[in-house]
Formats: sequence, C-alpha cells, structure tokens
Amino acid sequence: MRSHYCGQLNETLVDQTVTVCGWVHRRRDHGGVIFLDMRDRDGIAQFVVDPDTVDAFANADRARGEYVLRITGNVRLRPDGTQNPDMPTGMIEVLAKDVEVLNTAATPPFQLDDHGKVGEEVRLKHRYVDLRRPDMIQKLRLRSRISHNVRAFLEQEGFLDIETPVLTRATPEGARDYLVPSRTHPGEFFALPQSPQLFKQLLMVAGFDRYYQIAKCFRDEDLRADRQPEFTQIDIEASFIEEDDIMGVTETMIRQLFGEVLDVALPEFPRMTWHDAMQRFGSDKPDLRIPLELTDVDDLMKDVNFKVFSGPANADDGRVAALKVSGGASLSRKAIDEYTRFVGIYGAKGLAWIKVNERAKGIEGLQSPIVKFMDNIIEDLLDRVDAKDGDIIFFGADKANIVNEAIGALRVRLGADLELYTHDWAPLWVVDFPMFETDGSGRLSPLHHPFTAPACTPEELKADPANALSRAYDMVLNGTELGGGSIRIHDQAMQSTVLEILGIGAEEAQEKFGFLLDALQYGAPPHGGLAFGLDRLVMLMTGATTIREVIAFPKTQSAACLMTNAPSDVTAEQLKDLNIRLRQKAKVEETVE
Amino acid sequence: MRSHYCGQLNETLVDQTVTVCGWVHRRRDHGGVIFLDMRDRDGIAQFVVDPDTVDAFANADRARGEYVLRITGNVRLRPDGTQNPDMPTGMIEVLAKDVEVLNTAATPPFQLDDHGKVGEEVRLKHRYVDLRRPDMIQKLRLRSRISHNVRAFLEQEGFLDIETPVLTRATPEGARDYLVPSRTHPGEFFALPQSPQLFKQLLMVAGFDRYYQIAKCFRDEDLRADRQPEFTQIDIEASFIEEDDIMGVTETMIRQLFGEVLDVALPEFPRMTWHDAMQRFGSDKPDLRIPLELTDVDDLMKDVNFKVFSGPANADDGRVAALKVSGGASLSRKAIDEYTRFVGIYGAKGLAWIKVNERAKGIEGLQSPIVKFMDNIIEDLLDRVDAKDGDIIFFGADKANIVNEAIGALRVRLGADLELYTHDWAPLWVVDFPMFETDGSGRLSPLHHPFTAPACTPEELKADPANALSRAYDMVLNGTELGGGSIRIHDQAMQSTVLEILGIGAEEAQEKFGFLLDALQYGAPPHGGLAFGLDRLVMLMTGATTIREVIAFPKTQSAACLMTNAPSDVTAEQLKDLNIRLRQKAKVEETVE
Repeated sequence: MRSHYCGQLNETLVDQTVTVCGWVHRRRDHGGVIFLDMRDRDGIAQFVVDPDTVDAFANADRARGEYVLRITGNVRLRPDGTQNPDMPTGMIEVLAKDVEVLNTAATPPFQLDDHGKVGEEVRLKHRYVDLRRPDMIQKLRLRSRISHNVRAFLEQEGFLDIETPVLTRATPEGARDYLVPSRTHPGEFFALPQSPQLFKQLLMVAGFDRYYQIAKCFRDEDLRADRQPEFTQIDIEASFIEEDDIMGVTETMIRQLFGEVLDVALPEFPRMTWHDAMQRFGSDKPDLRIPLELTDVDDLMKDVNFKVFSGPANADDGRVAALKVSGGASLSRKAIDEYTRFVGIYGAKGLAWIKVNERAKGIEGLQSPIVKFMDNIIEDLLDRVDAKDGDIIFFGADKANIVNEAIGALRVRLGADLELYTHDWAPLWVVDFPMFETDGSGRLSPLHHPFTAPACTPEELKADPANALSRAYDMVLNGTELGGGSIRIHDQAMQSTVLEILGIGAEEAQEKFGFLLDALQYGAPPHGGLAFGLDRLVMLMTGATTIREVIAFPKTQSAACLMTNAPSDVTAEQLKDLNIRLRQKAKVEETVE
Repeated sequence: MRSHYCGQLNETLVDQTVTVCGWVHRRRDHGGVIFLDMRDRDGIAQFVVDPDTVDAFANADRARGEYVLRITGNVRLRPDGTQNPDMPTGMIEVLAKDVEVLNTAATPPFQLDDHGKVGEEVRLKHRYVDLRRPDMIQKLRLRSRISHNVRAFLEQEGFLDIETPVLTRATPEGARDYLVPSRTHPGEFFALPQSPQLFKQLLMVAGFDRYYQIAKCFRDEDLRADRQPEFTQIDIEASFIEEDDIMGVTETMIRQLFGEVLDVALPEFPRMTWHDAMQRFGSDKPDLRIPLELTDVDDLMKDVNFKVFSGPANADDGRVAALKVSGGASLSRKAIDEYTRFVGIYGAKGLAWIKVNERAKGIEGLQSPIVKFMDNIIEDLLDRVDAKDGDIIFFGADKANIVNEAIGALRVRLGADLELYTHDWAPLWVVDFPMFETDGSGRLSPLHHPFTAPACTPEELKADPANALSRAYDMVLNGTELGGGSIRIHDQAMQSTVLEILGIGAEEAQEKFGFLLDALQYGAPPHGGLAFGLDRLVMLMTGATTIREVIAFPKTQSAACLMTNAPSDVTAEQLKDLNIRLRQKAKVEETVE
C-alpha cells in the first residue's frame, strides 16, 4: 500500500512519485493550502494539498489529527526559507495528488506533543496513543535491535535457544511466587518462574553444553521504584567452563552490542573484588563514572572524644568512612540538610561534615560542627583524604552496612547533583563475593542462590563459612547491575555441604529441588552461567528514566494494567473449576456463594 | 577446557592433540585396553586408553557409563577392519594421554540406547537423562535453528520483536484461561494469554507497523492427543497490508526456512477455498500428499430406495460423498470393519462400500452390501468416480459435517495405511473461510475470532451473515494447520456489526475487550497478521511423533511435570496472601484452617 515510510523521504527522491500511509501528526491551513505533517514509525514528513486537486483536497480537508491517510504525490524541494534542517525530511515536501482517508480518529485523550501535561495514569490507560510518540517507538525499536543483536551473537557462539516452562514449580530465588491454580490437580498450584535457574542447570546435565534464552520471569514483590511483576532476562549457561570463559564471552557480547547498536566503544571491563567495591564505593555495584571514593578513617577516630565516631570506630561491625568532594565547600546549608535527610533513608542517624576553607589556617580554616572533637587528628585526617581548600568532607559512622549504604548512596547522589561524571560509560566486573550473608541473628543465607559454587573445598567451607568466597560475578555498568552469575556446584558432596550450612535439611531440600539434587548424581558437568536483566539493559542504552518506558504494556506499581484493567473479577464458575474460593467476601464472592 | 567437540573429530585431525569433555557413552575392555565411546552434544567418538599411560588408565578404569571425563590424546586412523563408516567419527580414534574424571555418575534409571524399553513416565521423570539421547539433542538443536532462522528473516523484513504481557486479562479465544490470583488486588485475577491477539492489534494502532514475537501462550484445556498447556506461537502482524502481502511474506518465510534448515525446496503454495477443501477433502486442512478425493453424489442418491442415502441426499444439511480408492478392492473384510469402527469415532453410523471386481460384468461384477438399492444409477455412479476394476468406493451419508469429518479422516487414514503419498511435502493456503459457524441451535459464533474482517460491507454482512466470507487464511502443510490469520477489522462500525451478529451486547463487549474497541476509534490502520504454532512446525520438520519430543520440559496429558512434580501443594500462608482458600478439603486445606 506504500512505496516509502515517511521518514525515508529526502532530497534523493525529488521529482519522484511516492505513496505513504500514516497518521496526521499536525495540520495547518495556510493561504488556502493544507499542510499535513504525516507520521509513521520511521519519521514525519510534510505533505502539501492544493485546492486544484479537488478530491484530494476534499479528503485532506476532512482530516483531523490522528486520522489515518494514504497519500500519493510528487517529492519536491521546499521553497527557500521554509526548509527545516532539524528534521531528516526537512529539505523536501510532497505535493499530494491523491489523498485517501483510511480511517477517521476521535480526538485523542491527549496530544502527543503534550504528553508531559497529562499524568502517567492517563497515558497508561491509553497506552496505544502514548506509544505513538516517536520517542516511545524509538525506544522499543532499539529494544528489538538489542534482543536481536544479543541473539545473533549467542547463536554464532554456539548457544542454543531452548525454552523452559512458565507453568512450573516454586523456584528457590526466595522472592514471592505468582501461583497458578491447577484445575486438573485440585488443591495444587503451579508457580511462575522467578528465573529459569534450575532448568538451565538441568539442560547442562543433559549435555546441551551452551544454552541461552530471552525469558520472561516473574516476582510477586511489593514493587519498589522501578520494578515490574514480569521482567525479561537474557539467560545464559555453559558447561566445561570456568569464570574467565563465561565472563569473557558475555563481556564480548556487551561490548559488541554497544558498538553495533550505539556506536560506543566500551573499554575493557576492569575487575574489582566485592571487598574493594564496598570499601571504596560502599556498594557492590559501584558507579565508576563518579570520581569520589570512601576513605576508611576508623584508626584515626578510635580515640576521639566524640562517641558518634569513636563508637563505630572501635566496634567489630562498625565503620567510619570519609567522602571528600573537591570544591564541595560551596554547598549551601540547605543542600547539606537535604543530604542529611537523604542518608537518613538508608538508616544513617546524621551526616557529619567538614568544609575546608583555608587549610593553611589550621583548625580555624575549617567550618564544621564536629571538628572541635578531633583537634589532635585533624591534620592526619585532612592528609588522609588529601583535602584542599574549597573541599568538603562528609562522614558516615555506624554499623558498616549502614555506612556503606548511606555514604555509597550519597556518593551517587553527589555525582548526579554536581555532574561529576568523568565518563559516559563505566563498566566493570565485581568478583570474589562472599558465599553467604548473615542476618541480624547470625543465620547464614546465600548471597546469590544455594547452587553457587564456593571458591574452596567443602572442608574449608565448613570450617569458616562466614568468610568463604564464592565463584560468583556481577557485571556492573554506571552503577547498575546489568547481570550476575556464577560457576555452579556440580558436585553432590559440595551441594550437601552448602545446604547443611544454610540449615536446609535433607527433607526440605528434596521437597524443594530434589530433582536438581537427583540430577547431580547422574553425571553433571562443571558448569556456570549468567543472567542479564534485559529491561534494565535497554533502559541504560536508551537513556530511559523508568522501566515502564522500555516495556510496551507495563504494569503500575500496584501491579495492575490500566489499559486492560487486569487483574479483574472472574466468574463463580471459573473459581469452582479451579477448586478455590475467595477468602474475603469480595464482590465476586457474593455471586459465588 | 576442550579443543573440540567429539562430533568434530575426523581424519583431518590425524596426528594432532585434541582435548574433549563429555560423557562415557559406552565402555569396553578388550585385550587389556579400555575403549571409551565419549559423547557430547555434537556426537560420539572413540577413545583408546592403554595401560602404559598409568594415570590415564587408572582414571579410565574408574569410569562407568555417564561419568563425565576430560580426555586429551592424539588422533589416529583406526586400524583396518575396525573403521565404522556409519559414524561421522568412525574412521579415527583418539589415543588418550590424559584422562580426568570431572564427575562420577550413579547408574542412570535407564540406558540411553534402551529408552524404548522403559515407559515415557520414567523418561519424563528423569528428563535430564532422556534429553541426553542424540536424537533428542538433535530435535532441540533444530528447534533452536528454526527459531533463529525465523527471527532473522522477520528482522530483515522490518518486523520488530515486541514483548507483550504474560500476566494479563482474559482473551477472547474462547478456550479456558489459566488464572493467577492477584495479591495486591484481592479477589481479582490475571489470566495467562491464549495468544497476544489483542496486544498485537494495539501495537498496530500505536503505529509499530510490523510486529513479531515468538510468544508463550496458554490454554487450560482437557489435553487431547497432542496438546500442551503452554505452547509457543510465532506471532506476526502488519499494518497497511492486504491478504496477498502477509501471505506472501509468510510463505516466503516458510519456504526459505525449509530451504535453509532442511535443504527442501517447497513448491509455491496453491490456494484453495474453504468450500473446495471441504467438498474435495472433507477438511479445512487437507493433506494434499494423498491422491484421494471425495466426490459428491447427492444428485444420484436422491431417489434410490435406500433411506440411509436418500435421506441425507434430500436434506438441506445432508451430504452423500463417495471416496474411491484405486486398487482398494483387495482390502480384507477385517480391514473394512476396522475402517467402519474408525469412521464411527467421527459420528458416522456406518461405512458403505462397493468393490469393483469386473466393471464389464455390470452389477454382477460388483461386491457390496448396498449395490442392490441402486441398480438404476450404478453406471452413472461408477462413471462419476471413474471406477476401474480393482477399486473400492467408500460412502459417507449423513449431515454434511459428519460426512466431511468421517470420510475426510478415512481419506487421511487410508493415505497412511496404504502409503499413497505422492509428495514429501504438500503445502497450501486455505482461503475464503465462512465468517461464522452455527451450532445446533442456529446461533452464530466466529469461525476464527470476532476481530476477523469480513470480505463484504457491514450491510451485506447483516443481510446474510451465515453465508458471508471472511478475510481469513490458513497455511496448511501435510494435513496440519501450520498457521492461521486474517485481515482484522479496523473500522468501528464493522466491529459493532460483527459483535451485534454474535449477540455480544455493548456492555459485554466493553467489559471483555473495551480497550480494543476504544483503540479502534483513535485512528486504527488497516492491519492483519498470522500466527504459526512453533511446536507443530518443529514436529513436522523434525519428523517427531509427539509434541513432547520437541519441548525440553513438557507436561503430561494431565498437565503435570513429572520431573519437578508441578503443580504442587503450597503453604497456608501463600494462600492467605492471595486471599483465596481451597474449596474442597484437600491435604493443604487441613493445615490452613
């Protein structure tokens, strides 16, 4: 029905006849002539309809915004002075010969150009209108290209695309599962997978050697800022490999993806231990675009006459860390108050600071509510952080995890607020994760999942589990975890040891993932893998500010779809078929009983 | 960890050192030497371990079937007389220098070569073992290639890969939905999609122009012979197109797929109207490999003195059809009895037949229980079906739909039993479907779905809905529906007319798919599409006999996974979170209350 997309029209087509199909983006009447900006997925071009072409003019005259038209006409250069060099098609226009109205359109609930003026709720309800915005089309096109590029790379590397079930059994990721009542097995439920983890390991046991899948995963969590109940994972697993193999191939994948899709040459990814990342950046996903680092000052603070600092400095699980910001002495009192409130979100009880106005003047040259307590160590402190006139030093002093979270977050916030970025893209690998983390009660839980291989023997693991390292690795870009994975346990004895340390008894283990434990005894190869969050990768690559911008039909924070009104009521008969009833007397319940 | 896959080893590598990783497929001890057939996803190769290589020999000696080994050694030609030309690696063997046991293996629940001896239940429970069979690996590799090939083609044609939601609202396909209770909206449920139909239409309204997705779909149906509760669809939709456009691009897709993956050049697909297909083959998915056709004989049978025939011949909804099988007169009485039973499955009350022994002898030369009733028309009948000596003619006489189903199925059965196939591959398009079908009570329901465009105006449709044709098309291969689709309704008035004819009131329509009806008013482009069943396509292309052979982790006919034991019990707390309780007092319920 068309010869070209609107966005393809340009000077090379002058004097040629073209036919396009698309939407009326804008209509202007000027000097008795109708100007139509026609839009399709490739762009916008200008069409001129003259009253001489009687039928075409009559049809164009009917057309309102978002009408669907098919127009045939001749491409010509725009008259001097009317060119628009900002538009790819801005040098030409099309003189219409035929205008056909393919469909009319009611006035849309909002104008595309004015989408910022309506709430996101209105746009989500009329998602099919909101998706018409060139910006949205571009983001989802890029998503399509990213998926395709990743697939092409993995295929070429010998990875097989294998689908794993969506109706399955609860997986051990630990988040809340979405459940699906079974009609044929009354009282029993499927779970939607939180990841294909167990299945991909079974595929390795089966000998598929290299597997990948772009897979939907599901978590019924209270949705924090930027999560979705269903999300997409680039899931990868390989056999007979070690850390360097899988990190190598996936790093190459991401580097070529950025090269081909964004024309960005990423540097080689440095590797940083988890311990270093926490010490220097207070985060296991440090944003290395920001040239700020946490400095340990525990030793200096042990004897200061300021309990807020000396307490954590002397406690086993405490930490006192300084964060120097060059030129930060110009921060206003109001800004500092805001940062104090901000670190409070992460549990910090306050935010101490020192402004270095004139170091030469000694303590007189400093401005700070706390400096009076640290007279005797102040010069050591300023030397330690290499403070210069005009700097500010922030402090965190608390349990180490609170300091890391709060000052780590402050570091990222300052990087954004003060525009400190030194690079556009700062990738790295974080390695040498601890095998376990402890909750308050000292109970161990897996930092990743219970199938992650430790970097030691079962005996060494048993002897000192709290300090054992795992063979896990995370790929981090600009402070976002792009993907994570590990070498898995392929040895039954090791798997039993880990489950024992986690306090998962034989019966519970058999009940939860007995099929994997069974499989391990029938000849499991050494294997490992990685999973990338596709939504987050696309967000970074498109510069989107929310995950909802890179998902065609997203859910709200209460896990609802405003367009389809899902979830929704079901009939009494459906519930009966599924052998369930509602617990509370809700609307539906009344018709059930 | 390896230099080659086992299947890659061949004569070109003689005298080179190679390292492979894999599973012990078979072990033989012969003349003090150990022979190991090592298996990986690419194939099987023979390794020889000599007692001279002390460590290697000791490790090889420990190895049992399915142990995981890493072996390094030198490739050499096998001695004369020990070559195996049936194996791709059969001309060479590897003299092992190093043998490393990467993992041990318990005796598997069944030997791969003996999988036929255990029930499918055992193999499904230990699916990771069953998947090791080279035949299974091959099928899933081919599936991966097929998906990849389809994606590459569609990308190149400008189709965008866009993901649609899995947690969504009940769709109007009409099968039973899988439901997912919402925790955040108590008493409400998501439905898993039976297809992305509505979403892909909305993507067209949004202007994405060309969409595809390889999407998981779900139906909670009583599983007939070869269905799965979750299945995979190659889903395609495009805007500003007509039937020929979308049929053209998808036919090209399938033809190039067969060419590239199977090296099969499919012929151009002929087109056949639904009416012709039913008349000539009794089926809307005729298997054109079989050179048998149904012949209408209603006119001849109107006045015969045999109510079984004359009744349907004179009834409006009746049909009398003949099916001539050349050379079929040699069928035994027992065979005919079996076919009589067989057509009974489809509702036929009997199976009349005439054996043509010697046409020259007239009625004397025929053998048949019914020929006595049709003395006066017998020559016309024999001429009509071009009967020759040695043929058999079967008859169906009943309501037309019963005749079509029964004799259509008999035709397919005879084609298989008598090996009548004239081609390996017989593709076609079936077009000009009726818009609606009637149930017994005369109520109309959509043959496809209520968004299928009719091939006439709203006025014409209203005037005679029962005889209206739709703009739907099915792609059929070897008697299997590979895919189907249609041009959709993009016009509100037409959509209202169709819903009205279907007796779907405005309120019900708004409740069920109001968002689509809303979308149609904001400038919907003309659009249409198609969906292929990927599982079935892979089945055909791999020659699999059940759908379970082309799915890595399939479900049983009662929709259960024997490996993971899904579905399974859940905890009282989980049910409470979801605001539901079990209806019957099942195991779980006792712990709930």
